[in-house]
Amino acid sequence: MRNQDFMPWLENHRRARRFRVKRIPFEEMQAWSFERSTGNLVHASGRFFSVEGIWVSTNFGPVPQWSQPIIVQPEIGILGILTKKFNGVLHFLMQAKMEPGNIDTVQLAPTVQATRSNFTRVHRGKTPPYLDYFLDLAGSRVLVDVLQSEQGARFLRKRNRNLIIETTGDVPLREEYCWLTLGQIGQLVRADNILNMDARTVLSCIPLDAPELQDATISQLPSVLAEPTATDVGASLDSLEGFRVDLLRSAVGPQHPMHAFEGILHWLTQLKFRYELDVERIPLKLVQGWRRTDLQIEHEDGKYFTVIAVSVDADNREVPSWTQPLIKPCQEGIVAFLVKSINGTLHFLVQAKVEPGNFDTVEIAPTVQCLTGSYQRVRPDRRPPFLEYVLNAPSERVRFSSLQSEEGGRFFHEQNRNIIIEVDGSFPYEVPVNYLWVTLRQLRQLVKVNNYVNVQGRCLLSCLGYL
Amino acid sequence: MRNQDFMPWLENHRRARRFRVKRIPFEEMQAWSFERSTGNLVHASGRFFSVEGIWVSTNFGPVPQWSQPIIVQPEIGILGILTKKFNGVLHFLMQAKMEPGNIDTVQLAPTVQATRSNFTRVHRGKTPPYLDYFLDLAGSRVLVDVLQSEQGARFLRKRNRNLIIETTGDVPLREEYCWLTLGQIGQLVRADNILNMDARTVLSCIPLDAPELQDATISQLPSVLAEPTATDVGASLDSLEGFRVDLLRSAVGPQHPMHAFEGILHWLTQLKFRYELDVERIPLKLVQGWRRTDLQIEHEDGKYFTVIAVSVDADNREVPSWTQPLIKPCQEGIVAFLVKSINGTLHFLVQAKVEPGNFDTVEIAPTVQCLTGSYQRVRPDRRPPFLEYVLNAPSERVRFSSLQSEEGGRFFHEQNRNIIIEVDGSFPYEVPVNYLWVTLRQLRQLVKVNNYVNVQGRCLLSCLGYL
Repeated sequence: MRNQDFMPWLENHRRARRFRVKRIPFEEMQAWSFERSTGNLVHASGRFFSVEGIWVSTNFGPVPQWSQPIIVQPEIGILGILTKKFNGVLHFLMQAKMEPGNIDTVQLAPTVQATRSNFTRVHRGKTPPYLDYFLDLAGSRVLVDVLQSEQGARFLRKRNRNLIIETTGDVPLREEYCWLTLGQIGQLVRADNILNMDARTVLSCIPLDAPELQDATISQLPSVLAEPTATDVGASLDSLEGFRVDLLRSAVGPQHPMHAFEGILHWLTQLKFRYELDVERIPLKLVQGWRRTDLQIEHEDGKYFTVIAVSVDADNREVPSWTQPLIKPCQEGIVAFLVKSINGTLHFLVQAKVEPGNFDTVEIAPTVQCLTGSYQRVRPDRRPPFLEYVLNAPSERVRFSSLQSEEGGRFFHEQNRNIIIEVDGSFPYEVPVNYLWVTLRQLRQLVKVNNYVNVQGRCLLSCLGYL
Repeated sequence: MRNQDFMPWLENHRRARRFRVKRIPFEEMQAWSFERSTGNLVHASGRFFSVEGIWVSTNFGPVPQWSQPIIVQPEIGILGILTKKFNGVLHFLMQAKMEPGNIDTVQLAPTVQATRSNFTRVHRGKTPPYLDYFLDLAGSRVLVDVLQSEQGARFLRKRNRNLIIETTGDVPLREEYCWLTLGQIGQLVRADNILNMDARTVLSCIPLDAPELQDATISQLPSVLAEPTATDVGASLDSLEGFRVDLLRSAVGPQHPMHAFEGILHWLTQLKFRYELDVERIPLKLVQGWRRTDLQIEHEDGKYFTVIAVSVDADNREVPSWTQPLIKPCQEGIVAFLVKSINGTLHFLVQAKVEPGNFDTVEIAPTVQCLTGSYQRVRPDRRPPFLEYVLNAPSERVRFSSLQSEEGGRFFHEQNRNIIIEVDGSFPYEVPVNYLWVTLRQLRQLVKVNNYVNVQGRCLLSCLGYL
């Protein structure tokens, strides 16, 4: 697809596939209901997902124990991108996908987002287009294949299989799909809410040192966006270009890392050993501090998130309507990497974070990952480290800033500000025990193995694509 | 310690610290009892471990569902070896440790084997010697620090922190401890049941490319053993020497691996995706096919293992007596690696194995890992792949063979034959889907991250130390 054709194509799909997403009372949902004995919100088929309760006890953070609603979805799904070389350049088959929780309804998604129910006989519906390429890999080359986590504060141990494969066969192009190069996709993260969360996590798994993927950036042109909407970056073009060169060196160049890779693993082991996390599944009706109204499940203080119900109706009557629960955040969040040149190599400040739904207690998160609103009432010394710095960073230090969406199939209009800030030499090397400076190459090595870098960290890494 | 002094020193401790370990009826246990509501076997303090039930459902292997007793011990313990340079050579502080389930009562253990109860105030007893070195790492250099699994068929998601640290400070030497080089320890695996399981798993985590650890082999001498008891190796000295050279190349030399490292991760992801494992904790009294007598918990067909109770009394009245449950296997087992030269580089045939207590569904296991007896009544086509080959391998192809013990604090006289066989060129490259040929360097890279290589695989790797 030519650069100038992309935004019109996307806008066209946004117009053509207009859906009305309407909040409804829980009792108007079809096939979804609250189980009598547990109060869990479940689908009649027992499939898809459920909203249940967990009781959490931990020595991480200021709150030692609490209970909360959580999404339970134990099946491993597939997030897959099909690629193919045209004129020697690798192209990625991306989908203009509608999800009820999406801002602007349609965002750019991987070729396939499939739950296990989609491809087992339990499910009666049509299988998603192109799924067969991912179920039988015999004819393809596998470029990326790794299980990765989703939001540990919202999902109980959920994982998806992130796959990128290359085919040499013919691929019929369906209307709502398009072929883009990695360079073109990279430009799209500069804008707010175009590339969906699933696309960002899959793209974050690309090994920077794979030559066939570097080829894919050849046709990179900055003009794919009609109007770039990321306007908060106050850095000069010169400093952005310098940052780009430093990033590449931090990713694939000669390194002077502050810590050997073994040292990073030691740091993680130490924290997995130090932090205890005891998570017990409980009936949703036993969760304390939350209440259920006809319209939503909400925290008594209005904090965190609510569980709501929506109906989805298409203008086009050929498309089916449905109802489903969604998670609606109570405020926007912020995810930010602070980056600093140390020993001549850019280092990212990462955080080892315990979240109740984590698969292995601790995952590596961005420097700052929090809900913005919830800290306004909190004493400054109890706010997350580095949050003040990020909120007040001089704009010429900002290297990236845009609003990016969470998964529209589960979350309603949830967007978080994604920020990358290059701090200056006066910024301290010394950081709290669960923070560490690592190079981009080290961070990408950690993404290769499952459940080391969390979804916020991975998605923020994918934002480097614009460089 | 000089080579010739080791066996007399160990024998001395075996004689001096004689214990009587006696089977007793469950009702004679102190502080251990069967919980009325669940039938679980628990300690009155709620600490140590418990024997509970699990209900397992999986699409791996010939049995789709079953229930079984399992050891529940959710705390992460420490298995730590303290090292220090003497005359420029790294020495490892090893302990002659008595455990009630040990064959020969005393085996050589890491400096510290500590459960979390040992170093939290819940526990009233003395803390183990040298533990402080591992709780405050500030004065030490960390050589190895990784969480690793234990037997997935016996423990529910149990993990220990495997640590090797180097100190430069003075270390008082207590009577039941000794300093050995890595070369000396390597010789000890040639004999049956000297190096305990905890020592073997910690040693397996040593990175072969760390120069300070290679120094440790300088004083390697083959005469540390009074009488090597591993007599089943029919290979000539020449072929053993050739194998040693090939092994080193497979570990640290130039490589021609059959699969890129990313290919191995893809293979693992695919199998973690393919195999479903649903494990539910259930009360021990609801486990089906097992029964409890006054003396043991046993499978109705006499298979697998029994849970027994023992009393432990020292001749020396100053040492306390106690009672505890142990797991007693119903037959010996076998763990074996098949190794083959491919593209001029030695490759190990590994297996992706699902066991119910696994932390992440699948872990990498040796080529063969099974109970020998339980397959005699099984149709040949249902026996584990490659078992027949291992049982009937020509003795000149055997590169290593000895009996090694499982953890004597939980298992009663459990020993497994550990075998490494180098197959010839006619052995097929083609293997079933959950098997893969990998180099030694690749296998050791996988040991660096937690929960990729299982305890049988790691312990068998440590047996390469003799080379």
